[in-house]
Amino acid sequence: MVIGVLKCTEENLVALVPKVVAKYIKSDYEVWVEKGAGLASNYTDQQYEEAGAKIVSREKIYTASIIATVSGIEINEIKQFNPEAFVVGKFNARVDSPLLTALKNSGLKAFSLDLLPRSTIAQSMDVLSSLASLAGYKSVVLAADHFAGYLPMMTTSAGTIPPAKVMILGAGVAGLQAIATAKRLGAMVDAFDVRSAVKEEVESLGAKFIEVEGAQEDKGAGGYAVQQSEEYIAKQKELIHETALKADIVITTANIPGREAPLLIEERTVKAMKAGSVIVDMASASGGNVAVSKDDETVKVEGVTVIGDSKLHNHMGTQSSFVYSNNIFNFLSFVMKEGVDNIPYDNEIVANTLLVPVKEAVVA
Amino acid sequence: MVIGVLKCTEENLVALVPKVVAKYIKSDYEVWVEKGAGLASNYTDQQYEEAGAKIVSREKIYTASIIATVSGIEINEIKQFNPEAFVVGKFNARVDSPLLTALKNSGLKAFSLDLLPRSTIAQSMDVLSSLASLAGYKSVVLAADHFAGYLPMMTTSAGTIPPAKVMILGAGVAGLQAIATAKRLGAMVDAFDVRSAVKEEVESLGAKFIEVEGAQEDKGAGGYAVQQSEEYIAKQKELIHETALKADIVITTANIPGREAPLLIEERTVKAMKAGSVIVDMASASGGNVAVSKDDETVKVEGVTVIGDSKLHNHMGTQSSFVYSNNIFNFLSFVMKEGVDNIPYDNEIVANTLLVPVKEAVVA
Repeated sequence: MVIGVLKCTEENLVALVPKVVAKYIKSDYEVWVEKGAGLASNYTDQQYEEAGAKIVSREKIYTASIIATVSGIEINEIKQFNPEAFVVGKFNARVDSPLLTALKNSGLKAFSLDLLPRSTIAQSMDVLSSLASLAGYKSVVLAADHFAGYLPMMTTSAGTIPPAKVMILGAGVAGLQAIATAKRLGAMVDAFDVRSAVKEEVESLGAKFIEVEGAQEDKGAGGYAVQQSEEYIAKQKELIHETALKADIVITTANIPGREAPLLIEERTVKAMKAGSVIVDMASASGGNVAVSKDDETVKVEGVTVIGDSKLHNHMGTQSSFVYSNNIFNFLSFVMKEGVDNIPYDNEIVANTLLVPVKEAVVA
Repeated sequence: MVIGVLKCTEENLVALVPKVVAKYIKSDYEVWVEKGAGLASNYTDQQYEEAGAKIVSREKIYTASIIATVSGIEINEIKQFNPEAFVVGKFNARVDSPLLTALKNSGLKAFSLDLLPRSTIAQSMDVLSSLASLAGYKSVVLAADHFAGYLPMMTTSAGTIPPAKVMILGAGVAGLQAIATAKRLGAMVDAFDVRSAVKEEVESLGAKFIEVEGAQEDKGAGGYAVQQSEEYIAKQKELIHETALKADIVITTANIPGREAPLLIEERTVKAMKAGSVIVDMASASGGNVAVSKDDETVKVEGVTVIGDSKLHNHMGTQSSFVYSNNIFNFLSFVMKEGVDNIPYDNEIVANTLLVPVKEAVVA
């Protein structure tokens, strides 16, 4: 088996880092890496070669038995792929796109790891969780860098400086990591989430859990947040508004997969916040949790810095690629554990991530 | 007595923040603030007015009995100042400049707080220490934001990520704060300083103190580093070189007041460092501790990001202005404690900071 790694043209990520090459070789894979594939995430061709990989052209990768990537392949190159190839990536498969349609129609056995179910076994392959964790960490580091004050309390000879106040909306993987990072830096943290089940986790990290009464429970939502009633949303908005006015930094992480993000911070809130405050909207690509945020832009609204960025992991390419590579390796190890002719197509991990229905895939 | 606060045109700092206005009023001062003086550091005219200050024109400030500023006054406005005025600021007084000469020849009683002696009493007025502390914190937050990885160790389902390695050169106020901040974020920290006396402080913060044998002691240097022998410098460079190759982040803080900064990181070191590493040179304005750094610029050298910034406090104007304002207030309280006609000109704090010799000042 040959695993070929395509350079990702959309994100600063690569599907295989030099450290993980040895794992494939140990599992009897031959490893090909496209020239320059790791450069955006600080891995050189030389490092891949030293690890035992072969540096080849992009066209050569098309002939591999497994083609691993992140995102950003071109539709017209798909038909040049080895027709027997397995393709593994993260293709934003909950949102229709020409690439997705092309992959589905290609007859290739293409897996999109953003479709992984949430389960104990799938955890070690869960690219969305890995990247969300990185993004949560980054959101606080980024906000701290934009904030014109200390996060920790400082006792100085010129007086005591109180800790900064950070409000975090959404306590999923990204939110929890954001809470942990803000606490590390010594800030006071308030966190909101519609899922009251996360209260304990939030509190174990040293943050205050702000509760809005009357939330819908999230049974069956696979750990994701569910849509709430209008009354609940109104109450929640008011409480968020009040907490935001005291905050120095606000991080919003409320994404609902494949849906428009809920609006949590209204324009009036931003305008009433303290000058010098910083907001990071991590849901900006799907409509945004913050009324005034713009995706991939930093705007100033009456002294408040509003950063819209749904791909914060992309600023940490070195680390993101490391976790992504491990996730891909774990996924392939699971899928291929009985050999390429005995892929467990009826397993929920395989069935969920495969872009074509199981039977078609088996036929192909 | 009227204290008038001039807008600083050079840095995002203001010599008085709204919170400190009340302290002056309580001490029977009338407080005038130049229109827009606090805007760069996120303090509005309205906040000053609410605190009891009067918003006036720049020209009106010239007539105050005490003129407080940070830096960046124009030579041609000095002659318009009230000839009886006290002027308080931070005029970079160890380096000759036309402004400094003009202030010295003006006959005004001008104090430059960067000339404060290091003493227990002076501590609460020590603007350089306050700003160095902010800069030290900021250096790590800035580097973390440029670094494409985690600082803390992370145990994830995709494998354990070791903590980042941070090397800090110089364990003065800025260096110690940088160590503390890097430790907060969970990094492993190595620190160097020519003053072996700081070893205990470095270790109490959880960092490893890397010792070079044969350092000159710093007796009589007022806590600042002293020039070292050539042999020592060669040994130090080698040890720093070796440590840098393992580091992800390097912060250099070695400033010698009024002198060229020592070169600590050579070009060969930067070129041999890991791609993706980040260097922050806090001595870039006085020649730099890093061979390839450029003042006020971020350059990339073979995958290593090198940030030259000697005024990192300037990116934290809100907080910097708060500590600076308190320092100025404490200084003026000390100088004026027996009244404007009984200034203790022979006290070392007054004698050191006054730009004109004591007798001339008394006559003026």
